[in-house]
Amino acid sequence: MKRLIKHLFLIFNSLLSFAVLAQVDEDGIRQIFEKELREGNAYQWLEELSTKVGPRLSGSSGAKLAVEWAKRELEPVSDSVWLQPVMVPQWVRGQKEIARIKKSKSELNVCALGGSVGTGPGGVTGEVVEVKSLEELKQLGEKEIRGKIVFFNRPMDPARIHTFAAYGGAVDQRGSGPSEAARFGAIGAIVRSMGLNLEDYPHTGGLIYDVSLPKIPAVAISTKHADLLSRSLKDNKHLQFYFETHCETLPDVESFNVIGELKGSEYSDEIIVVSGHLDSWDLGQGAHDDGAGVVHSMEVLRLFKVLGIKPKRTIRVVLFMNEENGLRGGIEYARQVELKKEKHVAAIESDRGGFTPRGFSMSCKESVRERIKSWKPLLEGYGLTDFDQEGGGADIGPLSPFGVPLIGFLPDSQRYFDYHHTAVDTIDKVSKRELELGAASITALVYLIDKHGLE
Amino acid sequence: MKRLIKHLFLIFNSLLSFAVLAQVDEDGIRQIFEKELREGNAYQWLEELSTKVGPRLSGSSGAKLAVEWAKRELEPVSDSVWLQPVMVPQWVRGQKEIARIKKSKSELNVCALGGSVGTGPGGVTGEVVEVKSLEELKQLGEKEIRGKIVFFNRPMDPARIHTFAAYGGAVDQRGSGPSEAARFGAIGAIVRSMGLNLEDYPHTGGLIYDVSLPKIPAVAISTKHADLLSRSLKDNKHLQFYFETHCETLPDVESFNVIGELKGSEYSDEIIVVSGHLDSWDLGQGAHDDGAGVVHSMEVLRLFKVLGIKPKRTIRVVLFMNEENGLRGGIEYARQVELKKEKHVAAIESDRGGFTPRGFSMSCKESVRERIKSWKPLLEGYGLTDFDQEGGGADIGPLSPFGVPLIGFLPDSQRYFDYHHTAVDTIDKVSKRELELGAASITALVYLIDKHGLE
Repeated sequence: MKRLIKHLFLIFNSLLSFAVLAQVDEDGIRQIFEKELREGNAYQWLEELSTKVGPRLSGSSGAKLAVEWAKRELEPVSDSVWLQPVMVPQWVRGQKEIARIKKSKSELNVCALGGSVGTGPGGVTGEVVEVKSLEELKQLGEKEIRGKIVFFNRPMDPARIHTFAAYGGAVDQRGSGPSEAARFGAIGAIVRSMGLNLEDYPHTGGLIYDVSLPKIPAVAISTKHADLLSRSLKDNKHLQFYFETHCETLPDVESFNVIGELKGSEYSDEIIVVSGHLDSWDLGQGAHDDGAGVVHSMEVLRLFKVLGIKPKRTIRVVLFMNEENGLRGGIEYARQVELKKEKHVAAIESDRGGFTPRGFSMSCKESVRERIKSWKPLLEGYGLTDFDQEGGGADIGPLSPFGVPLIGFLPDSQRYFDYHHTAVDTIDKVSKRELELGAASITALVYLIDKHGLE
Repeated sequence: MKRLIKHLFLIFNSLLSFAVLAQVDEDGIRQIFEKELREGNAYQWLEELSTKVGPRLSGSSGAKLAVEWAKRELEPVSDSVWLQPVMVPQWVRGQKEIARIKKSKSELNVCALGGSVGTGPGGVTGEVVEVKSLEELKQLGEKEIRGKIVFFNRPMDPARIHTFAAYGGAVDQRGSGPSEAARFGAIGAIVRSMGLNLEDYPHTGGLIYDVSLPKIPAVAISTKHADLLSRSLKDNKHLQFYFETHCETLPDVESFNVIGELKGSEYSDEIIVVSGHLDSWDLGQGAHDDGAGVVHSMEVLRLFKVLGIKPKRTIRVVLFMNEENGLRGGIEYARQVELKKEKHVAAIESDRGGFTPRGFSMSCKESVRERIKSWKPLLEGYGLTDFDQEGGGADIGPLSPFGVPLIGFLPDSQRYFDYHHTAVDTIDKVSKRELELGAASITALVYLIDKHGLE
């Protein structure tokens, strides 16, 4: 009987301490959200980064400014801040692109794809072959393609609920299309913009040349003008298309990942990375891509600081350079982790914009996912309900070989591809509250990982 | 043994038919979403309603146009369409409001509250007493209030995750504030706009006068200028405030609820209502409030029609008139339901904007909620995860005494109060995809209710 009572007492005690623990976590998370929603700094930071720094493609003066800005802003909220050098590509767009159907007066809205060679002042002129896939291109073969311009015109599938799945289902045209067209003798490539709406503006983005093939110039065309071109081709399949681009790739230059951290009080050698990428494309302000991820990450440190939360583990913000056209920052960071034999408990990336939080994606072993899912009762009241998607983030991907659990912040994806890689990815497209909810959500997750670990 | 086998066989059979049923439902819902996202008409309708009809306050020419438009557009997708007459108030804003701090040159951005009496050309001038609550007003009492203008300046609480809760926590100032101020002898009321951001534009909205008290003129002030006025009062508590409004209430006029339905093939006397309100405030285009709900509802009928789904029950779209300043449409509709002894299986309302779907709120008995929640596995892949909130909608509220299960469509609420009741509630604030996802979500719910009932 005495043993039974003792046993019951132990059970009661452990239940009680569990409840107390859960209550402490609940309070901690509530404080994080309240602080951010009442006195957040995420939006102010993003406004500065978007309007005072502006576009910041790797190697540009904007990127240099962004590095200086981020270092300066991180200093007051970090125990230490440093720059991690990395050589990055330097692709420049040059003067504005021109495109038209010959004999037509109206300009078509195009932009060079990142990494593309330019046509130079003479431009490129040719007949256009429209295809819906790389497979169709292959079937047409050299006979139909040689000497012509290939027009990749398969839209993103609007029926995919997660727009990133629709993007993934179309972006092969932009990434591999130009080289695959060159394989069959094409002289240029036009790619339908990666957007779900009918829009006037084109979406840029990187292409990857197959080094064994000739590099042909490639542009993205706005979705509206892709439809127009497609209709024009139905009327006249021999129409002549002209485009002119002045982009070029200059020698690599030095740039930096910007890193700031709060030292852990108990396990300072256990590092939790929270990250976004500092570079953006050159056309807009990179407000959603990935200014949002940058300020989300910076805000984690600031919130720990102002709330007086002393982390047990080291919280490290990494603002990667060159996600958009090279991933050099992510690769270099992982190389340094290996060299220094650093232990990373988790790496979180926010690179899907500053929209209302829906959850976190993961690339990790099942037990870690289960641990994170066990926190769902603490998080779902804040709209964080989706813990089932796969994936981490591009910049943290190179940490995968070291077994680091990779976590991606998952905001609502419906509007992301309205702005992605365009001139309209500007601060006015960001909702202050949605941005703040993202910062608080990521901070809450870091708080839980820091307190309870993932093993 | 034979009985056991028979028993097992029966269980197997029922499991099988359940699985088949679930598969049929899953396919049906997928078709609804695919159709809407590929060939939806919700956005085109909303563009027309927002730009060709425009603002449509009850009793205005815009409201008349809206009735005609809705009837015309519903006809091709309905078995029958009719107008349900209802007398509505006719409040008119008149010429633009003026407000300033005396001796200051800069205008302050205000707008008359709906239903307010006007000041007339002479305006109202007086000292300002700032309060944060009706309670504080009461404590100050007549001695401090008489002859002055009361300034209600309690902000919506940004820390509430659901912004409707923040709205609910502040809107007493607008609804009851003016009369409560009049109770203590105030000569006018200024109410901080119901918005979470610092904005330049004011938010209008209805006030309700206590008929036993004098009607004093009342305006909403933009959140930025509310802060400015508050700061100015700290410098000079005796400053003189001037405002001038030209609004007035004209005699009631006839208007209409617009109703369209698809007749049920099996239980035509069992009605499922899906609804929004056709009227809007006069300042913007009423794109989110409640153009979105209007086209969501219309799209339900259109999707049933184009997908060839023959409902077993009658699906009735009700586009209510006068939600904003009287609820006369909702009250009249319920009165007719009672008179005609119609059986309503469910009433759904969409009146929270055209944002990404999160779930449905309910006001119904527990068994009905459980039935709807049992469909969560079919809906959560579309982002519909929240089935726990209370509430239906203002217009369907009067159906509550008849025991009709009331259901509210719950989109993401973060941006709603950036636009609500303002000049910037315009079509460009609506994401086509988010709107379409709402239309498909509501259609999916109607599809399930129609197939399986709620009892």
